[in-house]
Amino acid sequence: MEQPSEEIKSAWSYAEGHRSNFLEELKELVSQPSVSAQNIGLKECAELVRTKMAELGLDAKLLPIEGAPDAVYGELKGSSGAKTLVVYNHYDVQPVEPLEEWKSDPFTPTERDGRLYGRGVGDDKGELVARFNAIKSLMNSGGSIKPNVKWLVEGEEEVGSPHLHGFISKNRSMLKGDGCLWEAGDRSPAGRSEIHLGVKGLLYVEFRLKVGEKDQHSSYGAIAPNPAWRLVNLLKTIKDEKEKILVEGFYGDAVKPTPQERKFLKENEFSVKELRKDLQIKYLLEEKDDVATLTKHLYSPTANIAGFASGYMGKGAKTIVPKEAFVKMDFRLVANMRAADIERKLKQHLRKWGFTDVELQTISKEDPAKTPVESYIAQTLMRCAEMVEQEKPNVWPTIAGTGPMSLFTRELKLPTAMGLGVNYPGASFHAPNEHIILDYYMKGIKQLICLFALF
Amino acid sequence: MEQPSEEIKSAWSYAEGHRSNFLEELKELVSQPSVSAQNIGLKECAELVRTKMAELGLDAKLLPIEGAPDAVYGELKGSSGAKTLVVYNHYDVQPVEPLEEWKSDPFTPTERDGRLYGRGVGDDKGELVARFNAIKSLMNSGGSIKPNVKWLVEGEEEVGSPHLHGFISKNRSMLKGDGCLWEAGDRSPAGRSEIHLGVKGLLYVEFRLKVGEKDQHSSYGAIAPNPAWRLVNLLKTIKDEKEKILVEGFYGDAVKPTPQERKFLKENEFSVKELRKDLQIKYLLEEKDDVATLTKHLYSPTANIAGFASGYMGKGAKTIVPKEAFVKMDFRLVANMRAADIERKLKQHLRKWGFTDVELQTISKEDPAKTPVESYIAQTLMRCAEMVEQEKPNVWPTIAGTGPMSLFTRELKLPTAMGLGVNYPGASFHAPNEHIILDYYMKGIKQLICLFALF
Repeated sequence: MEQPSEEIKSAWSYAEGHRSNFLEELKELVSQPSVSAQNIGLKECAELVRTKMAELGLDAKLLPIEGAPDAVYGELKGSSGAKTLVVYNHYDVQPVEPLEEWKSDPFTPTERDGRLYGRGVGDDKGELVARFNAIKSLMNSGGSIKPNVKWLVEGEEEVGSPHLHGFISKNRSMLKGDGCLWEAGDRSPAGRSEIHLGVKGLLYVEFRLKVGEKDQHSSYGAIAPNPAWRLVNLLKTIKDEKEKILVEGFYGDAVKPTPQERKFLKENEFSVKELRKDLQIKYLLEEKDDVATLTKHLYSPTANIAGFASGYMGKGAKTIVPKEAFVKMDFRLVANMRAADIERKLKQHLRKWGFTDVELQTISKEDPAKTPVESYIAQTLMRCAEMVEQEKPNVWPTIAGTGPMSLFTRELKLPTAMGLGVNYPGASFHAPNEHIILDYYMKGIKQLICLFALF
Repeated sequence: MEQPSEEIKSAWSYAEGHRSNFLEELKELVSQPSVSAQNIGLKECAELVRTKMAELGLDAKLLPIEGAPDAVYGELKGSSGAKTLVVYNHYDVQPVEPLEEWKSDPFTPTERDGRLYGRGVGDDKGELVARFNAIKSLMNSGGSIKPNVKWLVEGEEEVGSPHLHGFISKNRSMLKGDGCLWEAGDRSPAGRSEIHLGVKGLLYVEFRLKVGEKDQHSSYGAIAPNPAWRLVNLLKTIKDEKEKILVEGFYGDAVKPTPQERKFLKENEFSVKELRKDLQIKYLLEEKDDVATLTKHLYSPTANIAGFASGYMGKGAKTIVPKEAFVKMDFRLVANMRAADIERKLKQHLRKWGFTDVELQTISKEDPAKTPVESYIAQTLMRCAEMVEQEKPNVWPTIAGTGPMSLFTRELKLPTAMGLGVNYPGASFHAPNEHIILDYYMKGIKQLICLFALF
């Protein structure tokens, strides 16, 4: 195991000595509401973040984005000849409703049992302030920030970052760099640090068919067209009962795990049995062992029915032929699939099978992203996590979830990784009683000290 | 064309002379609410019907049925050596809601433009009083009732006659006869008398599958079982895209039209074009010509999706794997299929295809019924309609709808037919502004005079 340098050790000591200050700084930011979905407190929170950045010595400013809350952007010069680390966070938080389920006020951050409760204590203000404090610890203990830092903190991540793509397209040169630290870092259920190097993409569509102006009495069932049956007939051309997706060319760009990635899939903590328990589900579509099931989970694109509605959905009987039906589907995409390409193939599919009466509406579209395990950012994150934890982190070449990471990996060509943060399963992000564990907060700061000292 | 006897002509004259009295008698019965679904006025209405029957000279009584409103039962002795005609009606009516859509109070029968409006003026009080008045016209004009009459008027038809089966099983000998006149008689859109000799059966079921306690995030879509997909996979084993039902033995007992029935299918008024317009639908599953489409409509059993619900059914996107799904299906059955047999075959089907996790719940079950065109009741109805209308009626060997007629045809072995009544398309039965056309009411009485004089 690599041991920390004297510079890092001094910064760690500083951080340990300032635990209560670091907690107060987080509380200050959490006390400022900033709910993007409800347009609450965004301006004030952006200004607070800018001030904190400026106090650290960054060249920090507000960047107006038309139709969106201001972004905060800060730059810091590293040592000469240094690499450039792009850092991404967001200062907005989820709504707090249902308020009655909170045990303490969401905007009055409260310590209980070694945890800090409040909206945004983790997602994403805890991560943001941990990064501030890592820089402060290094600077105030005689160390120095090695990389150039370019830091973007946006204000509408919790409503799907609708302006991020446009912003990035217009600011490509500003955001050039050698690697990007994504918004957060997670832990396994057992408490091991995790590093995530990719996300799945997502194409969310609705198939809709209306055949008439009213439901028909089902005595016309032999001659009246049934839109629910028609969508069933469409669905059976999309995926077979063995879960194989039948859309022509669907799997064309999907990549398999590399040997290096397979190594991590084997070494990481993962148990189907535990997952079944977490999900409160009777069974999963399991493969011969945990590694095979995990590989399927992370490397299989999906064609999921998220919703299906047609006709009478109440209790008992109503004898009708429905006038309309719709099915909502989300296709999770793996590297190197493209959402727009799959959308095009679905349209072709409708034509090929004669379902030209079925309307296809795209609701959202996000490309997958994956950063190589061998990349400098990935390797540095692993090194930093191991230095603090004295054990290897779990390294996920990709997670099964989706996020706008491809804007950074594809548009900016920035290897991007998640890790070195304060999150853990059970932190209730997006839910009532969001919290962090204070020990993880401090460990996160120590990991981040390593990053700012080493990248 | 057969011309009416002097006896019938005298009775017709009597009826014409008493048009306003006959209308008053109907109004009296309609003014007495009798909503079975809401248990309103049933006792009073039953007693009123019994009184009317007794006034006509029938041996009339109330028959208590446990858990149900009293039925009214009346008998009348016909001429010596006569056949026995069983007559079926009901005195209960549908609820009147939405009340604000009625142009006049539903229980204050009101004449407008040659029509009489009110709840039950047609279904079924108009039919019942027309029959009373046919008997009265014959008797009061010197004629006589030819058949023995056995008349059952139940009080819960509008809630699905839940006790009728049990009642009939217990009263087989009481209800012995040579033919049964069903509750109503209809007309074509062009105003031609119709005679209906059968109904389809119905098996209404729900397939339901629950795989877990909560919806899963759809990032688990590659490994979490999806109940909506599973029901789609079940559905594709039930019917193919060419509308062929794949359940083993499903069509086994289904009969094709006889040559005599085919003749009626060709002669009857039926236009796909008109039907499309009536149904406000873009297209139907049409065959090469109207007769072929009609044959499919009346002689094909169906496997209809009446409802399908799973997962997220609101606007936009929610990325979940649903925890449960259900599909409601109604199978319309043709002679000589049996609902219980098809239910059994569906259960076998689930086992055969390995869908033992899917719950099958039967919601309702009704056998089809069909009375031969050659039967005495069918032939007499045709003769009576033609005598009044001076044109051949449309004769439907079966209609596509469903009713409890099989209790009479199967349990009582009674050839049963619908016809000689006051109904017409657009009468708004079960809906606000239910009405009859007064000319049809009088024509119905004349047709029924023939029946009671000739059967």
